[in-house]
Amino acid sequence: MSKKLDDLKSQLEKIAFLGSAISLLQWDQQVNMPMGGGAYRGDQTGFLEGLLHKMKTGDEFKQALNKLINLDTGEILEGLKEDLKEEERVLIYEVWRDWNTSQALPGEFVEEFSKAQTASFIAWQEAKRKDDFDLFAPHLKKIIQLSKQKATFYNPNILKYDALIDRYEPYMTQAKIDQIFGELKFEVKGLLSEIEMKKVDFHGLKEKSWEKPSQERFIEYVIRDLGYDWNCGRQDFSEHPFSISFHPTDSRITTHIKEKDLLFGLLASIHECGHALYEQGLNKEWFGTPLGEAASFGIHESQSRFYETRIGMSKPFWDRYYPILKSHFYSQLKDISKEDFYKSLNRVVPGVIRLDADELTYNLHIIIRYEMEKEMMEKDLEPHEISNLWDTKYEEILGLRAQKPSEGILQDVHWAEGYIGYFPSYVLGCVYASMIYEKMLKDMPDMEKDIAKGEFALIREWLRKNIHSKGRFKKPLELVEEVTEEKITIKPYVDYLRKKYGEIYSF
Amino acid sequence: MSKKLDDLKSQLEKIAFLGSAISLLQWDQQVNMPMGGGAYRGDQTGFLEGLLHKMKTGDEFKQALNKLINLDTGEILEGLKEDLKEEERVLIYEVWRDWNTSQALPGEFVEEFSKAQTASFIAWQEAKRKDDFDLFAPHLKKIIQLSKQKATFYNPNILKYDALIDRYEPYMTQAKIDQIFGELKFEVKGLLSEIEMKKVDFHGLKEKSWEKPSQERFIEYVIRDLGYDWNCGRQDFSEHPFSISFHPTDSRITTHIKEKDLLFGLLASIHECGHALYEQGLNKEWFGTPLGEAASFGIHESQSRFYETRIGMSKPFWDRYYPILKSHFYSQLKDISKEDFYKSLNRVVPGVIRLDADELTYNLHIIIRYEMEKEMMEKDLEPHEISNLWDTKYEEILGLRAQKPSEGILQDVHWAEGYIGYFPSYVLGCVYASMIYEKMLKDMPDMEKDIAKGEFALIREWLRKNIHSKGRFKKPLELVEEVTEEKITIKPYVDYLRKKYGEIYSF
Repeated sequence: MSKKLDDLKSQLEKIAFLGSAISLLQWDQQVNMPMGGGAYRGDQTGFLEGLLHKMKTGDEFKQALNKLINLDTGEILEGLKEDLKEEERVLIYEVWRDWNTSQALPGEFVEEFSKAQTASFIAWQEAKRKDDFDLFAPHLKKIIQLSKQKATFYNPNILKYDALIDRYEPYMTQAKIDQIFGELKFEVKGLLSEIEMKKVDFHGLKEKSWEKPSQERFIEYVIRDLGYDWNCGRQDFSEHPFSISFHPTDSRITTHIKEKDLLFGLLASIHECGHALYEQGLNKEWFGTPLGEAASFGIHESQSRFYETRIGMSKPFWDRYYPILKSHFYSQLKDISKEDFYKSLNRVVPGVIRLDADELTYNLHIIIRYEMEKEMMEKDLEPHEISNLWDTKYEEILGLRAQKPSEGILQDVHWAEGYIGYFPSYVLGCVYASMIYEKMLKDMPDMEKDIAKGEFALIREWLRKNIHSKGRFKKPLELVEEVTEEKITIKPYVDYLRKKYGEIYSF
Repeated sequence: MSKKLDDLKSQLEKIAFLGSAISLLQWDQQVNMPMGGGAYRGDQTGFLEGLLHKMKTGDEFKQALNKLINLDTGEILEGLKEDLKEEERVLIYEVWRDWNTSQALPGEFVEEFSKAQTASFIAWQEAKRKDDFDLFAPHLKKIIQLSKQKATFYNPNILKYDALIDRYEPYMTQAKIDQIFGELKFEVKGLLSEIEMKKVDFHGLKEKSWEKPSQERFIEYVIRDLGYDWNCGRQDFSEHPFSISFHPTDSRITTHIKEKDLLFGLLASIHECGHALYEQGLNKEWFGTPLGEAASFGIHESQSRFYETRIGMSKPFWDRYYPILKSHFYSQLKDISKEDFYKSLNRVVPGVIRLDADELTYNLHIIIRYEMEKEMMEKDLEPHEISNLWDTKYEEILGLRAQKPSEGILQDVHWAEGYIGYFPSYVLGCVYASMIYEKMLKDMPDMEKDIAKGEFALIREWLRKNIHSKGRFKKPLELVEEVTEEKITIKPYVDYLRKKYGEIYSF
């Protein structure tokens, strides 16, 4: 028995060795690679991805899995169940689920999709640069058509969108998101209407000059305090901040420090640090298996948003760190009180660009994309109908209209890269994060005092114990519900938003 | 026909994709990797090296090769020869030669050797730190024993040492090196005796403080002038400077800038730049095949030493760059004339450490190692005999004796890592470089004037055309002999050394 499981784990380890090498190629591409190396790197990564797919769906792997589980039904074989611990059963089942997904797509389809992604991404870049949606339109159409086909390959018996969501947020459904996002949209719009017309000064946080080396030192100091293990990670610079992990002992982050924006680099780093703490906190013993992997994109985002918004944009945090920040930028900050700084940091300014959005309106940007993806999967929309839908939704939900496609439907890379079903994770993460925060406050009533003292060890340990080290032992929603002892609810998130903005905007 | 060759090339391309990913893991390990990631990286690289070995010796590859060449004899198949261009015949033959070497070693032996290398490397590190040869002795014995076995696997019908040398310098033999090194030893010792007792001041080049950022800017400026393509490469920092190439469009170098040593970082960068120019100059169309690979370690070293010593340590070079260097370090250099700087840079100081050696005595350090390797392969020496041999050789050839093993037999990593037969390439490279330099001067009589003007384009183009772009089309020695229209000779090297040191030391 243990031999059969060991065989499977050894196969998984090999897959992880190669997968993690591909991750390094990707990290390097965004952080170091000289421009000239791009064409070769593309071919190389493509080949290795193909090799990885072969390992995941090849006979050797299939046979190892088949000795433990019925490949058709996902039932663990009779006679084995009793000898297995619960976590081992989960491991085997989740491996089967991944395998089932990988092998669901015919080789020719994988190739076709991959080519469409590449062509679409290139067309999108040009379309955005030239501000011409027509250049991208046929590719969008193709991506949608192929995504529907993909969904059918995955599971012809469920909603197409459900099949796609499952890739990012396993076991989550459109029906459940409808409910969560429906309520949240109503609440957020309500809050927004109370805020509108009221103003908070920005004090030049996004205009004055903030010396980059000082920003860098301050960021490193904060990240260290939060508990990021520099012995098992590093921070670099890239156009778009991201985190990537090769193993719990090597989980890296990147940031983008902007001379004219004090907040961008800092909050990006804290966000990525939240992701990296999750990866550093995964159980090394289970590396390569589902028990050593993050539960979902939504849970991942709950960790990054937890650190970014619930800590990094909170009052107790700035009680501690504003004086320290001021020591780095005295001349720029000398006339700004801690309270004013905190308000500026949390200022709500509805806009058309998701990546520039404040914490509150960010939700609406995501909900718009979610509603659109649903329609795109349900109906047969022509590209210009999709583009019109974008504008209609923005008018209706945010009361704004993009002046050009590059600031409208062309702003995000996700659809261009073929990622449909990914967006909802962003807001699910925020909802989870607030449920978790509320529970932590019950378990550790002094938590906010700790934050105000720059002491984050208990917070990290709580998350490590209850979330990080669990891997995929629980389904994502179950994980949140069990650890918070609550059914999924937006209440903690809405309560938090109302309290925060009520104070800042006095309503 | 063309189909068969295309199949082989497609196999080679896949092997290169994976090989180049492993190279990135290695680069990252020395440049970026956080300490904590070391254990995992070791396992990961080990697995991927194994996978690469399987690809190189697997059935798919073997079959593709077998359609072109007789695997037993290395004869291109009857009926194919006529259709093949000469370069294609060379390509196929050299691929067969590589394949023959790879498959010569039984899987268990590869594993045993790899484990011995790891254990030996670890023991060597400790032995060097504790200055205790005994800790390393049994590992050295094992490495030698396994290396002899390896040589026999490669080819039981030739000298063991010849079989090993061939891995680094194909088609080269001990007999030929004996002749070259024998003459060179005599000449270098002769020069050294003329120099001994004469002194050149060092002017604090290795003592004063040289601000690192200024060193870095100066180095980048020089490397750019030499023709290093920054669009297809980058420079980073690592403990031991090295160059590594993933593809001609991404060939990187590292350096180590020392605050107290003006020369170390600069000369290391120029040396690595010479290697990288070779890699950047390989023919992209043949990437992954022998025609897109460097001819040998010795030819590689000829390029790095060419740039380091024949350019970077030359008078015309400093005619151009000394005033520029002075602008970066005025206070440190203001009292040192260009002539004095040039002499200091080329000062001869015999010592016991190879890596600290000047250009002249460096040859003797290598010759000592070469003579030792020969004896180690011929005889059955016990570790303490080898250690005594080291001291005897140093006394005899350099008139010096290391005061502790860490500065003696434990100083180099090569044997600890199982690389026997590698050392001779270093000096062969110097000999080749001088033959090439002499020929270039015939072809381009104004070459030294160009150097004095900081114009290196013609030099790079000459090397690209005559050496770099050739790949392994010619055997290494043939390549040098054909391009220089001379049989291998140390004369240009010795003439150069005599002229240079004669001027500096007035003899």
